Amino acid sequence: MDLPPRVSRRTFLGGAAATAGMLSLSPVEFARWTAAGSPLAALPQGRRRQSEDEWDSYAKLHFNENPYGPPDSVMQAMQHAFKFANRYGYPDGDILQAITDLHGVRPENVVLGAGSGELLDVVGLAYLTDNDKRVVGSDPSYGSVYQQATSIKADAIKVPLLDDYRQDIPGLIAATKKHYRNTGFIYLCNPNNPTGRIVTKREIQRLLDEIPEDVPVLIDEAYHHFVEDGDYGTSIPHVLDGRPVIVTRTFSKIAALAGMRLGYAITTPEIARRLQAHQTGTINALVKWAGAAALKDTAAQAHVKQVTLDLRKKAMADLHSLGFATIPSETNFFMVHLKRPVQPVIEEFQKRKVLVGRPFPPMTEHLRVSVGTADEMARFAKAFREIFPGGATGGSND
Amino acid sequence: MDLPPRVSRRTFLGGAAATAGMLSLSPVEFARWTAAGSPLAALPQGRRRQSEDEWDSYAKLHFNENPYGPPDSVMQAMQHAFKFANRYGYPDGDILQAITDLHGVRPENVVLGAGSGELLDVVGLAYLTDNDKRVVGSDPSYGSVYQQATSIKADAIKVPLLDDYRQDIPGLIAATKKHYRNTGFIYLCNPNNPTGRIVTKREIQRLLDEIPEDVPVLIDEAYHHFVEDGDYGTSIPHVLDGRPVIVTRTFSKIAALAGMRLGYAITTPEIARRLQAHQTGTINALVKWAGAAALKDTAAQAHVKQVTLDLRKKAMADLHSLGFATIPSETNFFMVHLKRPVQPVIEEFQKRKVLVGRPFPPMTEHLRVSVGTADEMARFAKAFREIFPGGATGGSND
Repeated sequence: MDLPPRVSRRTFLGGAAATAGMLSLSPVEFARWTAAGSPLAALPQGRRRQSEDEWDSYAKLHFNENPYGPPDSVMQAMQHAFKFANRYGYPDGDILQAITDLHGVRPENVVLGAGSGELLDVVGLAYLTDNDKRVVGSDPSYGSVYQQATSIKADAIKVPLLDDYRQDIPGLIAATKKHYRNTGFIYLCNPNNPTGRIVTKREIQRLLDEIPEDVPVLIDEAYHHFVEDGDYGTSIPHVLDGRPVIVTRTFSKIAALAGMRLGYAITTPEIARRLQAHQTGTINALVKWAGAAALKDTAAQAHVKQVTLDLRKKAMADLHSLGFATIPSETNFFMVHLKRPVQPVIEEFQKRKVLVGRPFPPMTEHLRVSVGTADEMARFAKAFREIFPGGATGGSND
Repeated sequence: MDLPPRVSRRTFLGGAAATAGMLSLSPVEFARWTAAGSPLAALPQGRRRQSEDEWDSYAKLHFNENPYGPPDSVMQAMQHAFKFANRYGYPDGDILQAITDLHGVRPENVVLGAGSGELLDVVGLAYLTDNDKRVVGSDPSYGSVYQQATSIKADAIKVPLLDDYRQDIPGLIAATKKHYRNTGFIYLCNPNNPTGRIVTKREIQRLLDEIPEDVPVLIDEAYHHFVEDGDYGTSIPHVLDGRPVIVTRTFSKIAALAGMRLGYAITTPEIARRLQAHQTGTINALVKWAGAAALKDTAAQAHVKQVTLDLRKKAMADLHSLGFATIPSETNFFMVHLKRPVQPVIEEFQKRKVLVGRPFPPMTEHLRVSVGTADEMARFAKAFREIFPGGATGGSND
């Protein structure tokens, strides 16, 4: 999930989206799309077939998606659910029970959303609309929460990452204590996007121990399923301990259902009710069945994780062999330090039909690369060598 | 679309929905479902297959759905769109352009929603959260707007229907003038649910002529596509005239996509931006393609309309032959006057595996019947004769 840093949801629909034509996305979706510098957004209207061909032609390493699509088990569940396409009330594949079983929580701990993005928006609406409330979080991190804050005229208190690109937990604690009265909630993306680095279990515990107990903490675990590091752990147990923690999960990453829109939050019943009051989206019949099937097909997820991490490690090793440094990653994407401005390099990749991540200021010399298929990664490697013919120490042709 | 009159979205999720287990619906969806007295909601958890069999066994004449499901053209569009199931940004079948082409409006006049239900909620959030703002509308009408008002602690000013069950336009005008300062917006369901009666073009014009010009008017045209009466017309031209009118349309009725979640509002650019700021839902890839295909397949919609109206007229004539009066309908449902309390009759139908509409107080002696397939209507007719063996003048066995 990806949002540009400076697009206001509230203001831009009449402008940019109105000219999108063939891409009738929601404001957030549209922002993601145009942020990636997609060539499609610039095409004239009425050229759907051609633009789909063009879309097909790109290696898509820009949105941290699962490039393989849903596994057979999930596709079958969706095909079955077509029988409910025309219905309001119907058996839904037991999606809620699949979630409560998985996490050992009760139904009142769960808020389903049209992707975890809806839930991040809803937390902002629920906790930042009182007078002068702010979100405290890291910079850079996943931008959706900060953008939502801007759109509802709330401020963000952003704590820079540490020198090793890890999140600064003592800094977040200090900022929260300093602005306690005005802190609507703390946002922690774990593992973090765009860096791929984790916050450890011990660090989460320290954060919760040292902040005032009534400060809500939103912990976005979108990339949870790709982590190998044993020092990492989900924060769902803190919800069961009664802390005002909101853990969000998505089916858009390892479950390959970004276009189908499903995510959920695990939180206290009190917070769940507060969030639901601000929620306007509903979830389609197919993705309810898909989500339940995805949670059951642990073999498919394990396979995607293995293939993805193997390809990530290979790509990072290749870059190291060319003399480039990378940030250690626990996700299905990684950052490589180009030691030069990233924007022209992004454009060079696009010329070679490879879409890579947008700039994430202030990290303007790092390129974020999503891990695609083996073929896509080979196209990335080839393009990289063309753009940097002399490796890290040589010139580039951008 | 159907909501029970007294369920607060804000309060009930921790209660009723938490016990739903297999039916992990949104609050609104869950309310619809339980309101219909569905036997599924009462089943213990973990019995999905059985409950689906039971669901299959009912004639479903309770939610005003299209019983035939999406036509081949729409199914093909959705099958194609599965290639985008794992993606955020993708060609979307030109859904926005299909809508703007159909209505002769510009993209900035359109707000897409996860069903028109999301848009009705959003209008409430946008126009009823200021101090002491109220919605003015008819009673009974589609309850979603009133329920949303209750959940955000706003009031509704409800104007009773006329003796012929038509909406009381002079009454709505008078109520609006009387409460002008406190009127957030006027809600008009046209044709009206649950009665099936229309407001004429001339009446809409009169309403707009006589109310203060700055009062927003939300006109819900969910059942637009079933109308035959030449005195009816869409209110979209009033948007183009610059009036603060919001017309909502849904793909949940004639387009048979209720479970896929797509609707839209046509309104002024200013109102569109205000609505979008309160919207948290997003729309899935499949229904974008489905919606565009549905708008193009006018033959399929014409066929559904014809079959549905033929079956409705036949059912109503049958009831007349038994001595029962019906309310004239311009929709895919109708009301029959039972001359006795409707709730026990609903339960008798359910025993016979026929789901019919819930009670719509204060019309507690009218039964709302959605028009199903020919087979479902035959099952309804058979059950009706069993429940009322003596016709309208005889006793019933309830």
